[in-house]
Amino acid sequence: MADVWVKFEPDNARVGVPRGTLVLVAARRAGVPIESLCGGRGVCGKCLCRIVEGEIAEEGEQRAVLGAQYEAGLRLACQTRLLSDATVYVPQEARVSTPQILEQAAFSLGERAPQPAVRKVYVTLPRPSLSDPRGDLERLLDALREGGVAEPRCPHVRALRELPRLLRQADFAVTALLRENELLAVEPGETTSELYGIALDLGTTTVVGYLVDLRTGERLACASTLNDQVQFGDDVVSRISFAAQGAEQRRELQRAALSSANRVIEQACAQAKVVRERVSLATFVGNTCMSHLFWGIDPFALAQAPYTAAVQQGLEAPAGEVGLGIAPGALVRWLPNIAGWVGADTVGVILATGMHRSQDVWLAIDIGTNGEVVLGNRERLLACSCAAGPAFEGSQIRQGMRGAEGAVDHVDILDGSVTYTTIGGAPARGICGSGLVDAVASLRRAGLVDESGRLANEQTLADDVSPDLRARLVEIDGQPAFVIVSAEESALAEPVALTQRDVRQLQLAKGAIAAGVRILLDEAGLEPGDVRRVLLAGAFGWYIRQSSAAEIGLFPRELEERAEAVGNAAGAGAYLALVSEELFAEAQEIARRVTYIELAGRPEFDSAFAEAMLFSPGEREAG
Amino acid sequence: MADVWVKFEPDNARVGVPRGTLVLVAARRAGVPIESLCGGRGVCGKCLCRIVEGEIAEEGEQRAVLGAQYEAGLRLACQTRLLSDATVYVPQEARVSTPQILEQAAFSLGERAPQPAVRKVYVTLPRPSLSDPRGDLERLLDALREGGVAEPRCPHVRALRELPRLLRQADFAVTALLRENELLAVEPGETTSELYGIALDLGTTTVVGYLVDLRTGERLACASTLNDQVQFGDDVVSRISFAAQGAEQRRELQRAALSSANRVIEQACAQAKVVRERVSLATFVGNTCMSHLFWGIDPFALAQAPYTAAVQQGLEAPAGEVGLGIAPGALVRWLPNIAGWVGADTVGVILATGMHRSQDVWLAIDIGTNGEVVLGNRERLLACSCAAGPAFEGSQIRQGMRGAEGAVDHVDILDGSVTYTTIGGAPARGICGSGLVDAVASLRRAGLVDESGRLANEQTLADDVSPDLRARLVEIDGQPAFVIVSAEESALAEPVALTQRDVRQLQLAKGAIAAGVRILLDEAGLEPGDVRRVLLAGAFGWYIRQSSAAEIGLFPRELEERAEAVGNAAGAGAYLALVSEELFAEAQEIARRVTYIELAGRPEFDSAFAEAMLFSPGEREAG
Repeated sequence: MADVWVKFEPDNARVGVPRGTLVLVAARRAGVPIESLCGGRGVCGKCLCRIVEGEIAEEGEQRAVLGAQYEAGLRLACQTRLLSDATVYVPQEARVSTPQILEQAAFSLGERAPQPAVRKVYVTLPRPSLSDPRGDLERLLDALREGGVAEPRCPHVRALRELPRLLRQADFAVTALLRENELLAVEPGETTSELYGIALDLGTTTVVGYLVDLRTGERLACASTLNDQVQFGDDVVSRISFAAQGAEQRRELQRAALSSANRVIEQACAQAKVVRERVSLATFVGNTCMSHLFWGIDPFALAQAPYTAAVQQGLEAPAGEVGLGIAPGALVRWLPNIAGWVGADTVGVILATGMHRSQDVWLAIDIGTNGEVVLGNRERLLACSCAAGPAFEGSQIRQGMRGAEGAVDHVDILDGSVTYTTIGGAPARGICGSGLVDAVASLRRAGLVDESGRLANEQTLADDVSPDLRARLVEIDGQPAFVIVSAEESALAEPVALTQRDVRQLQLAKGAIAAGVRILLDEAGLEPGDVRRVLLAGAFGWYIRQSSAAEIGLFPRELEERAEAVGNAAGAGAYLALVSEELFAEAQEIARRVTYIELAGRPEFDSAFAEAMLFSPGEREAG
Repeated sequence: MADVWVKFEPDNARVGVPRGTLVLVAARRAGVPIESLCGGRGVCGKCLCRIVEGEIAEEGEQRAVLGAQYEAGLRLACQTRLLSDATVYVPQEARVSTPQILEQAAFSLGERAPQPAVRKVYVTLPRPSLSDPRGDLERLLDALREGGVAEPRCPHVRALRELPRLLRQADFAVTALLRENELLAVEPGETTSELYGIALDLGTTTVVGYLVDLRTGERLACASTLNDQVQFGDDVVSRISFAAQGAEQRRELQRAALSSANRVIEQACAQAKVVRERVSLATFVGNTCMSHLFWGIDPFALAQAPYTAAVQQGLEAPAGEVGLGIAPGALVRWLPNIAGWVGADTVGVILATGMHRSQDVWLAIDIGTNGEVVLGNRERLLACSCAAGPAFEGSQIRQGMRGAEGAVDHVDILDGSVTYTTIGGAPARGICGSGLVDAVASLRRAGLVDESGRLANEQTLADDVSPDLRARLVEIDGQPAFVIVSAEESALAEPVALTQRDVRQLQLAKGAIAAGVRILLDEAGLEPGDVRRVLLAGAFGWYIRQSSAAEIGLFPRELEERAEAVGNAAGAGAYLALVSEELFAEAQEIARRVTYIELAGRPEFDSAFAEAMLFSPGEREAG
């Protein structure tokens, strides 16, 4: 029973919720996508809202977390409960936006013709009569046989439930949706010209979908949304813990994954003006945990050594059974996982980049909420997972944020002064992963961060450092910090700055990745110079400068010139496997071929990690 | 929310229901099996109850329907609403009982060894380690492969959901349930000695289940219950009408079928002390409408010319998906249908009798709520459906009842006087199908019913008729009647008698069957004398005397000596197909081979029917 009504602005979206509901929960119900990095724990400070009208109850340490923003009337949606009818304003910076990057990737079939797993065949059936008493299904299968389908069969009861009425209403002229010789669904009339599919990348944080015309392979629309599972924790481990509590919790996570995917499907279909019921195939990628949660499989063993997946093979089921909002008879499938912490998304990256067919050795680094590294070529592929943590996505960074409008995404220190850019050119309101890497790389070059990662202070500062830079070295919350954007220029009531702790977080994150790269190279018996291409996948890989990534040592510095961004390669892999059965089979082959290297099992990992956390001895460039 | 509590006696079963609920509905919820032939329309007078305590509201014409029983305090459960907490007594005669017959049939594999569709394989898996990171499923499939299963695979997500925890709790020693190379389910520990199956006959009125040890083929238990669908009508056509109203109505009928089947499973498992979750295979027979309703398939076309089935092939799905209360991964399958009105039950009859392998021509007649006739041998099989109506089950007969305690089941007129027996030797309280046939056959022989079916009266009575018989010719409700049991001897406050209308009902019913037999013989170009065996299947076939059936002309009189009862052959067919894959395949072959003859499409049917309604010119025997 709805006790209070809340209106969200400027969306003008209304929803009824029980009295005492959190603003964050109400916003989700109303379809207002509020950002929440910490999973509602009241610490990330992202889920900003302003109570325009209505009675609320505040919880947690909002004043401490929000500082000046609190005084300016902003509140945390995850720590504010609605006690009466209310109007809530959600500012732009609190919203999840569709990163441009998600549109970018190698979405190309090249020379191949589309060859999807499903097809449509239009048939007209002779009407039943007293002298031709065949069952409706048998009549349809006979017509399909005459129409050239070899040994058609129907193993799915679902396709039959409405068949008698559908056939008669359609005057016995229908279109069959088939997977090889298997009847999946029947549609009234001639619908062969409408054969759509959707490729979905179910990320820990973001869900992206690409709507595709399966007859041509053309991408018709792209949509994305926040993974509703973030309300149960922003990282994979907290979701596993939640899921481990029981079957009901697992179902909640499954429902959240589905509702997010369904929202993406709805948006993409609306954009392209495609009826959802005409989407006949869905292909998913995502990490191993996401695949488990999507299918309702207990993921608890993923979080315990030796981190075993319940299943590696790709799973599939009809959409109606799964609860995916496309044609109920549509085929829903996932690409296979490689291991407990290297999932179908990595298979997608390999498939889309084509490194499994390359003669040269390539290195692929996909950094999302977690980081995966793949090394190899058509002879051999090695993969590992790196617990980089979400620092590259702006989490655990004091003023970190995702790559949305107002995020500082590039920083330069030249001739003793600082320049920066923000996404969308808007006043700075935080720093995203690429800005973080740039900032630290620049500070490194400027000699303001030493090899161990320590920020310079009055005592350690070289004499030739410019007054501007000196003035930027301040103290924030009792620790050294470097101001990138002054309070005057920023959108906040305070400067945008990098603290010593932020640098340490970056070191942990980049150290994990770099150690993984190191161990894969050792395992393969290769030197960095043997790598011909470094492929940076994902949003982070798209926005960072390769020079900065090399500078901080994310990958060996000598490979700087060989590095390139490949965009959402995981999503592109899902697209390719959606459009071509041959490529789907290739994805399965990839999953079988990749050798998974468990870093936790390596005695050399700890020292490699300790070493990789340091910055390489730099040639100081400018002061 | 329960508004009133009602206690049923002598069961001492309590249930809470909304105020205003019908006693019949409350009784079903409480698990008290009240008989209701008319589907709650208040006309059959079977659903007797006595309100011991509590306030009620009476509806309908109870006083008229119940007569003296009303004065004696009995009420119709389907026309009585509960307005307060109440205590309700349900007399024995109002209860559904398990007819003995259902235990009887050719439940024999003969020379065959059991060869069910599912099997179990016990395996112990190597524990996962950092150096052996295979997924749980892949580990299991590898172990099965080593255990001799060729190319094991798992297409069912369901089997995986709990796998990680199950494997670890079972210390990696598990039993796999397989169908050929397909993994259906995983059970902890070694359970290969517990492999059970259940054969179910889902009748329009009664659901019977036979629990079987699949390793030996041994029948462990038999249970039966009323099909809960009777609340939506006692005949197939009223259920089709109800289902045609929409998807929700169809789901109600589906739920009713499932709850009845689940009750049978529970009872059978309790009898044999078998855990339901160890039942790994279920095989159903039933008429075409029952199969449609079980699977949730729209049956509306069955009731409209040309009476087409939505599907003829046998369907199957995992129990967990269907909602059948056995192992969730268990395979649930139906035998195929032959046509819209000749279903899997007839396939079962053919399979169990073996007529499809006979060199001689046999005639099988299965009379349940509907009647099916099959004629043929291993060369050719013809089948038709006869709209006999439920007269043979006691419905539409003034004092008709099913074959339960107190039913007059045999009647003889010898030397001018009447003898009869009742089931269980109890005081007569009605007449069941076999008693009805016996009574009419005897009256025919005694010259008290003429060829056209007219009961004798003072004017038409022969002089040599005994005074006892004369005295039994009375008038009831304004029509001629013949008293079988006097009011003094009966359990009722009135005599048990046969009315002119009852004889007419019998003529309609037997005429439909006999016309079907006639048309099949004509179609096959055979004379009655060519038939070597007449197989009477079902409860009715078990209880009637072949001589009486021949006398009234249910089948050609010259075949009297060749007739035999074969019991619940449909159920026996389900048993055979459950225990042997070879026989299941034979059942599928039977469904393909049988030629369905639609009587409604025959111009000769009307005259055959009119002729078959008459009684053959009899040789008068005794007066």
